[in-house]
Amino acid sequence: MNQKTWGGRFTDGTDARVEAFTESISFDRRLYRHDIIASQAHARMLAEVGLLTATEAEQIVSSLEEIGAEIEAGKMEFSISLEDIHTHLERRLIEKLGDVGRKLHTARSRNDQVVTALKLWTRDAIDELDALLAELQKAFVESAEREAGVIIPGYTHLQRAQPVLAAHYFLAYVEKLQRDRDRLRDCRARVNVLPLGAAALAGTSLPINRESVRAKLSSDSVARNSLDVSSDRDFALEFVFCLALIATHLSGWAEEWVIWSTTEFNFLDLPDAFCTGSSIMPHKKNPDVLELTRGKSGRVIGALQQLFVLVKGLPLAYNRDLQEDKPAIFDAFDTVAGCLSVAAPLVRQTKLRREVIASRLEAGFLDATTLMESLIARGVPMRSAHEAVGNLVRECEKRKCRLAELPDSMFEAVAPGQSVAIKSSLGVSNALTAFKSYGSTAPAEVERQLREWKERLS
Amino acid sequence: MNQKTWGGRFTDGTDARVEAFTESISFDRRLYRHDIIASQAHARMLAEVGLLTATEAEQIVSSLEEIGAEIEAGKMEFSISLEDIHTHLERRLIEKLGDVGRKLHTARSRNDQVVTALKLWTRDAIDELDALLAELQKAFVESAEREAGVIIPGYTHLQRAQPVLAAHYFLAYVEKLQRDRDRLRDCRARVNVLPLGAAALAGTSLPINRESVRAKLSSDSVARNSLDVSSDRDFALEFVFCLALIATHLSGWAEEWVIWSTTEFNFLDLPDAFCTGSSIMPHKKNPDVLELTRGKSGRVIGALQQLFVLVKGLPLAYNRDLQEDKPAIFDAFDTVAGCLSVAAPLVRQTKLRREVIASRLEAGFLDATTLMESLIARGVPMRSAHEAVGNLVRECEKRKCRLAELPDSMFEAVAPGQSVAIKSSLGVSNALTAFKSYGSTAPAEVERQLREWKERLS
Amino acid sequence: MNQKTWGGRFTDGTDARVEAFTESISFDRRLYRHDIIASQAHARMLAEVGLLTATEAEQIVSSLEEIGAEIEAGKMEFSISLEDIHTHLERRLIEKLGDVGRKLHTARSRNDQVVTALKLWTRDAIDELDALLAELQKAFVESAEREAGVIIPGYTHLQRAQPVLAAHYFLAYVEKLQRDRDRLRDCRARVNVLPLGAAALAGTSLPINRESVRAKLSSDSVARNSLDVSSDRDFALEFVFCLALIATHLSGWAEEWVIWSTTEFNFLDLPDAFCTGSSIMPHKKNPDVLELTRGKSGRVIGALQQLFVLVKGLPLAYNRDLQEDKPAIFDAFDTVAGCLSVAAPLVRQTKLRREVIASRLEAGFLDATTLMESLIARGVPMRSAHEAVGNLVRECEKRKCRLAELPDSMFEAVAPGQSVAIKSSLGVSNALTAFKSYGSTAPAEVERQLREWKERLS
Amino acid sequence: MNQKTWGGRFTDGTDARVEAFTESISFDRRLYRHDIIASQAHARMLAEVGLLTATEAEQIVSSLEEIGAEIEAGKMEFSISLEDIHTHLERRLIEKLGDVGRKLHTARSRNDQVVTALKLWTRDAIDELDALLAELQKAFVESAEREAGVIIPGYTHLQRAQPVLAAHYFLAYVEKLQRDRDRLRDCRARVNVLPLGAAALAGTSLPINRESVRAKLSSDSVARNSLDVSSDRDFALEFVFCLALIATHLSGWAEEWVIWSTTEFNFLDLPDAFCTGSSIMPHKKNPDVLELTRGKSGRVIGALQQLFVLVKGLPLAYNRDLQEDKPAIFDAFDTVAGCLSVAAPLVRQTKLRREVIASRLEAGFLDATTLMESLIARGVPMRSAHEAVGNLVRECEKRKCRLAELPDSMFEAVAPGQSVAIKSSLGVSNALTAFKSYGSTAPAEVERQLREWKERLS
Repeated sequence: MNQKTWGGRFTDGTDARVEAFTESISFDRRLYRHDIIASQAHARMLAEVGLLTATEAEQIVSSLEEIGAEIEAGKMEFSISLEDIHTHLERRLIEKLGDVGRKLHTARSRNDQVVTALKLWTRDAIDELDALLAELQKAFVESAEREAGVIIPGYTHLQRAQPVLAAHYFLAYVEKLQRDRDRLRDCRARVNVLPLGAAALAGTSLPINRESVRAKLSSDSVARNSLDVSSDRDFALEFVFCLALIATHLSGWAEEWVIWSTTEFNFLDLPDAFCTGSSIMPHKKNPDVLELTRGKSGRVIGALQQLFVLVKGLPLAYNRDLQEDKPAIFDAFDTVAGCLSVAAPLVRQTKLRREVIASRLEAGFLDATTLMESLIARGVPMRSAHEAVGNLVRECEKRKCRLAELPDSMFEAVAPGQSVAIKSSLGVSNALTAFKSYGSTAPAEVERQLREWKERLS
Repeated sequence: MNQKTWGGRFTDGTDARVEAFTESISFDRRLYRHDIIASQAHARMLAEVGLLTATEAEQIVSSLEEIGAEIEAGKMEFSISLEDIHTHLERRLIEKLGDVGRKLHTARSRNDQVVTALKLWTRDAIDELDALLAELQKAFVESAEREAGVIIPGYTHLQRAQPVLAAHYFLAYVEKLQRDRDRLRDCRARVNVLPLGAAALAGTSLPINRESVRAKLSSDSVARNSLDVSSDRDFALEFVFCLALIATHLSGWAEEWVIWSTTEFNFLDLPDAFCTGSSIMPHKKNPDVLELTRGKSGRVIGALQQLFVLVKGLPLAYNRDLQEDKPAIFDAFDTVAGCLSVAAPLVRQTKLRREVIASRLEAGFLDATTLMESLIARGVPMRSAHEAVGNLVRECEKRKCRLAELPDSMFEAVAPGQSVAIKSSLGVSNALTAFKSYGSTAPAEVERQLREWKERLS
Repeated sequence: MNQKTWGGRFTDGTDARVEAFTESISFDRRLYRHDIIASQAHARMLAEVGLLTATEAEQIVSSLEEIGAEIEAGKMEFSISLEDIHTHLERRLIEKLGDVGRKLHTARSRNDQVVTALKLWTRDAIDELDALLAELQKAFVESAEREAGVIIPGYTHLQRAQPVLAAHYFLAYVEKLQRDRDRLRDCRARVNVLPLGAAALAGTSLPINRESVRAKLSSDSVARNSLDVSSDRDFALEFVFCLALIATHLSGWAEEWVIWSTTEFNFLDLPDAFCTGSSIMPHKKNPDVLELTRGKSGRVIGALQQLFVLVKGLPLAYNRDLQEDKPAIFDAFDTVAGCLSVAAPLVRQTKLRREVIASRLEAGFLDATTLMESLIARGVPMRSAHEAVGNLVRECEKRKCRLAELPDSMFEAVAPGQSVAIKSSLGVSNALTAFKSYGSTAPAEVERQLREWKERLS
Repeated sequence: MNQKTWGGRFTDGTDARVEAFTESISFDRRLYRHDIIASQAHARMLAEVGLLTATEAEQIVSSLEEIGAEIEAGKMEFSISLEDIHTHLERRLIEKLGDVGRKLHTARSRNDQVVTALKLWTRDAIDELDALLAELQKAFVESAEREAGVIIPGYTHLQRAQPVLAAHYFLAYVEKLQRDRDRLRDCRARVNVLPLGAAALAGTSLPINRESVRAKLSSDSVARNSLDVSSDRDFALEFVFCLALIATHLSGWAEEWVIWSTTEFNFLDLPDAFCTGSSIMPHKKNPDVLELTRGKSGRVIGALQQLFVLVKGLPLAYNRDLQEDKPAIFDAFDTVAGCLSVAAPLVRQTKLRREVIASRLEAGFLDATTLMESLIARGVPMRSAHEAVGNLVRECEKRKCRLAELPDSMFEAVAPGQSVAIKSSLGVSNALTAFKSYGSTAPAEVERQLREWKERLS
């Protein structure tokens, strides 16, 4: 008998180059566990509806269990002439069980089988990512606690803008990661729709019970239209999009910390264990983990683009092109999971250089906007207040001084009779404590949010 | 006074080339209505908390209404020296109201203002897309009804696979579009979180009430972290991802119908009104709408890639790069909305060439799989049944005949004593009616699903 | 001594997770041969300028040769704690030669070393691709010869347009592949500029001779600016762009042949050895090689996008992100080389189904444009002739007939007194032989070009 | 007569939505001048071969000239019912000349006409870009001259690495831009191949002379295969790839200067005229031009991705999808030309803050590698010298001092008897002048290269 699952109608064997070109066993072996689980559920259902005997089903279930153990023990030999993991598992089953093994593929096709295994794998991958994201959130929350009370410059356009609490800064990333988790949760609901039973593209004439399989596999629902199932990779694109956005978030954080690690910024004390040196320059300590994290975003974004090109212009239903989905999905997942795994300990072990930060905190007019707002609170129209403070800043630049160092007369001109009150409220520390609004860097506000995140993540 | 909102601290004016390079008024004027709505809510809140008088707020609200009307009447002159729509609106307000106008920008920044307007616009865009998608679903459902009972070949690998009901085929696209709608719904929940009040990046020292603004703008919630707000474009990427996936779905449908419109397939009667001719070849009738729909997928996928590159590696918080989000978002939306708008009437007006389809329906062994399943139902192990039918097909290829035309003896060899029953169940019509499973092309199953979709979409 | 090349200034060892995250040995081991060649040239030059003795240089050269043999024999143990192939080679050299081995890295950095090895590898890859492209061109030329004289329908918009010689069709792909080769040739000139000697980013204070290394490595010239070298990956992007365009060319060809392999077109006799079957549908023979070739274009295009995201926004000079270039380059090359390797034999073994094609050649008004041109030649203004023939085609559609079957009177109305001459020139065969222009499908023209290509490729 | 060029065979008019969906006049009007030039050459050739009289040709040529003037004067009314610029021009010609106008389209199709106009436009665009790139090179060369002798820190991993001359730094960008120009030159050779005369896809039966048209349009050669012409957009992808790489180069430069403009780095004195302020924060001076330049790279990279998706999987020959090439090409060109136009004056007007840079030059161990090389020159094996200097740096970190401040005994331990010589060669200035190698930052080397670039660019 032919080694392939489909040799009957063919006169000539497959060209060896074609076997090498079309194989997927080199990457889809990773799905063996999920394929086994789905096959076991399928076999049990076949027994329920009378297409197998109960004994046959149990033989299949336990033999698949054995085969899974063989793979884990490294005893399975993989061969490109057997195409994919699904064929390997079925062939091995037939070796073990003969005709009983030949019955497993009843009322299913590789089309629905492959996508079922891939969806089960993706469901697990999402759960794993969710845990990794939560872990990184916790690392940021811990940093927020550790650096409580530390004021850092906030930037827009990478120019010093207003002072913010370090805790506020760390919690901003917690928010971004939470959206990533929310998106994955929404994606999971679409992943967890069972394709199995759609068969090749049109369903089957055999009396299967898809609802029973769904319950066994803990899927949320059964896919409604077999043609749709046979052509659908939406879940893969959505999953990789979620990954690409996570990678992009990490790229921004990495960029920021690369900048903060320069001699010039010197905000961070990166642990030696997360840096590497230079083969030629003996003094170098480089933030390689951050740089690679930044660069790896390209890999995940590239994987998403690959998938879009892949499915563009494909008519219904299954086309072999779709086999190429898995390398993209696996690589995107591995890349993001790898980045998250190393990000959490790096965040935990990195400390702010508080003295360095504090020593330059009064540079860059971080208090200018609060000054403007104090004028507004005193009744100056916002645009006029903005103009007035802008002029004061220009004067400071000329004199190379801070706002608090300008002569009283200049404040008197702007807010007659209030120059003393105004001047006494200048400086970064005053500016920081002046914040009030919901979601702002006001100390009480940040403390409340930090408390909420700690509860939520515990 | 300087025309810009920020001239105070500057000594020299802006280079004219820089004004042209940095302006956004050429594309963000499209946001005028949403910016007005947000400004009106903001002004009313400012009055509630005492930063404006009630009279001032009402002056602002009604003047903004007038300005909106001026823009709609084409009376607003746009100038790149005023940068963006937000500056245009504020300048015009100040022209009308003087110092009262100068107070509107109290406790907000363009950073939170722009993203608020863009989110309100995106919310509307999502609702518009949802309606367009529903309309296209209805067109497919109508086609399913109109072509009820028609059998067409189902394809995998673009090779004839099994027979399916035309209605089943049309409903496959309804499923895909439903997932598109579901994704947009999930995206909308993240879009509808209010940024306003985050100010530049750190919040404000003025006593604003963000909850009040949220209620006025019907947002679902208030964004929690001001630094996150100032740097966040997740919603834009997610929205454009949703658009890219819709465009990709349409590209596959378009490809399929381009193929079905060939002389060789000849499945479709495309309306003249949706085709164009050739400038040189007088006989041509080309499916241009389908081709452009297929090609325009590139535009939307490209827009998504643009956004990913845009945000890659950006540190917190706002960076001016983000201004480039809008051309991508607008172009992606216009492209997809345009495709959907023309797709629905095209689907409605296109008819299957039933006779042509029927005349070749017995070609391509569409009944082979059902034959195999009937052997399985008679107890032949699946793999053995597959092999046996494969051999029968190979025999047919040699004899250039159909399965039903093979001699009885060949069936007798495969299923002793059952060759008569088996042969009588061959043929495409029998194969079609044999389907049973949930989600399959079984007539009763398709009828049920069609009924459900009609209800759901009505 | 530390295993790394850079441990001196570090207090703590590297975190194991970081080693796994930052390693490149899993993919850059592929560069071992090119790194050895470059190191040998470097060592010989060091001896020429007195930084090594002649004996030391020869020890290094011969030991590297031995190490290369060890790797080929599978005797080298790879470890992620040694980071990359370059460290592995140097460590092994030091094991063999002690202090002499410690001298090899004199006046070079991994920054220039890595990019030198990668450029040498790319140069070889380009030469290999050039040979594969030439082989595929030859396969198309052979097809052109084999199918000489066969007329096929030419399509625009996938609608039948005008008749073309099959040979003309095959030669169109030869042209596209020639442009691919030309682009690779231009790319090669930029690849073949020697980086070695730029050291880390600024050159060296040691008296090296870069020209001598250039001559030894057969590079075309020496890179002029060390900062540029340390940050430049242009050659990688250009190379992968060339690959992406090749893959895109192949995707169009594959798409076309997938369509031509349908039951409906039935133009091609694909060899069994290049097709596969279905796990469930026993009658299927699917054009998998073509489908995968089409789909793999996404992989290469995705790799290009990955590289663009990677280098976007990187300041000078070397950044660790750049390590991520190699997986993209290698995967893109392997994918395209794989597609080309299987495309050539597939083209060679696929035959046109001449009878099927011929039997439907008169369908689709392939002679309409030639009819129009014959009216133009008789003095009818082009637009009027176009209109007139358009009307005749509409009449044919009503009557369901060909142009040649319309009554004489209709031609007489269009071209009084010339209807006999005109009607006798109708039909696809006449239309084909009427072509005259340079580059057209005129038989003499195609024959000439075929002759030229045969000479050029021999 | 129908307004379209192709109405004859159609029964029903075009749906208004379809006209709006398929039109290209809104963007391809930009090609009017190039289409006119090509039509004039075509008409003259038609007269040469007898398909027009000399008088007819001259009427066409001069009328097209008039029409061009009408367009320039804003007198042409554009309408989507006339599809594209080509139809507009032909209709207007027919209005002016009647039947003579109806003859212009003899022996050509829009397929070859459009691509001819687009190639002529692209040729001009390349020449314009070449001039813009040269201008930016000159600006960098001027900066190199202006800042002659200034030493700046060179970075790898954004960590201080070795000292470099500012001139060396500026010339690194000149090298990158030169490669961009070289790539455009190679691209131009492939753009400048004449498509006209390929007609729809198969050539023509009329006796045209393509060589004559080629000479008139100064093309380098005539495209050889009509099917290839009708399907080829390689030149567009290659052109946009070149643009994307230019944009990517600019993104890296912009990133660098954004970082250098921070309070922390403070390397640059950006002119007010190239910065903008904040609507809320009165003290801000933001490097918006640099940020937008960085962000706009996404737009061009997105355009390239759009084009790849567009052509992926398209069979021969022309497909309407290809119409979507122009918005991508135009937007990519405009974006890059805009960035280059503003980059040159920005580079010219930006000065280094020499005192700030000098004041921190001894920070970061920029002399460590030269120290190591001086040990190598004294016979210490490179790896041992690296280790030794690494240990010295670690000692400096502990003591918070520079290498030159370590006690003599520590140098004596490393290089017995040479500590005095070694210590006297420490410091950044000594390190800089020690460089020797070709392409290094050695002053004489940089001076030579600067001289060469000045000559080459003058």
